[in-house]
Amino acid sequence: MSVDVAALSRLIEQFERMPGVGRKSAQRMAFYVLNLPEEEAARFADSILNARKRIHQCAICCNLTEETLCSVCRNEARDKSIVCVVEDPRDVMAIERTHEYNGTYHVLHGAISPMSGVGPDQLTIKQLLNRLDGVKEVIMATNPTVEGEATAMYLSRLLKPMGIRTTRLAYGVP
Amino acid sequence: MSVDVAALSRLIEQFERMPGVGRKSAQRMAFYVLNLPEEEAARFADSILNARKRIHQCAICCNLTEETLCSVCRNEARDKSIVCVVEDPRDVMAIERTHEYNGTYHVLHGAISPMSGVGPDQLTIKQLLNRLDGVKEVIMATNPTVEGEATAMYLSRLLKPMGIRTTRLAYGVP
Repeated sequence: MSVDVAALSRLIEQFERMPGVGRKSAQRMAFYVLNLPEEEAARFADSILNARKRIHQCAICCNLTEETLCSVCRNEARDKSIVCVVEDPRDVMAIERTHEYNGTYHVLHGAISPMSGVGPDQLTIKQLLNRLDGVKEVIMATNPTVEGEATAMYLSRLLKPMGIRTTRLAYGVP
Repeated sequence: MSVDVAALSRLIEQFERMPGVGRKSAQRMAFYVLNLPEEEAARFADSILNARKRIHQCAICCNLTEETLCSVCRNEARDKSIVCVVEDPRDVMAIERTHEYNGTYHVLHGAISPMSGVGPDQLTIKQLLNRLDGVKEVIMATNPTVEGEATAMYLSRLLKPMGIRTTRLAYGVP
């Protein structure tokens, strides 16, 4: 589509790069931005810059945080002897919403996937191995996909010889 | 959902305000931003500010432009005696894509809708009436909705006594 307004077409392109956003949605979003009051648009732009600048990985569990440690790792009441391994920070949010889990997390930021060229080195597995002092149980809560299963399997084989109990989240009907 | 990272939850909220974006999509977009290289995020934020600051309405047709006049109104080759009235800048893009129309446009930025409190004064009808010198035909290309039809009707009644031919875009099967 020809958009002869350069600033507008640049904005549409930016939105179009986001996951799950097609040309039409990107256009709708761009027009939404154009109709914002100027200070609202500034706040929008600012929240992008701010989030990108201030959010990084927790030094222990690699979850996202603005501090050195995330709120779970900072919390004295959480059981540090249990680690729940997940693929994505959103998985932490999902489990936290249940209010049923009192251990800590470890965020891999992906799963082993030879097809997409993601090996163990691209994940935070090294950080996981470095924090196993005092850990009794590791719960594999990777996704129920081929990649997630392979990652869980890989980690189990790595952890079992170290005397750590590894369990896997149950999915579906038993 | 509890997101304990303030900068992240602010960003998710910003995305969630956009039309057609739900909580899950907003989260996905926010995580996309977090994974951008820093200069890419800066470019994204910049394109929002830039678009909002530099884009305004064309002094003649009220379409969006970065200049005083839009590219259609600037173009000497376009037939200035025909004006196609549309509701939205996206309609101009759609008609331009056909490469079949050589007249000019007038963008109303909405349609008359008493239900949503949009009267003729909230649209660019005054600007349309101010530019009718030398105009022979006005094509009503408002949307085929109740509001679009009402707006076309309203404009026709306004323009006919001035000796201007008003036509309506045909829709569907004749």
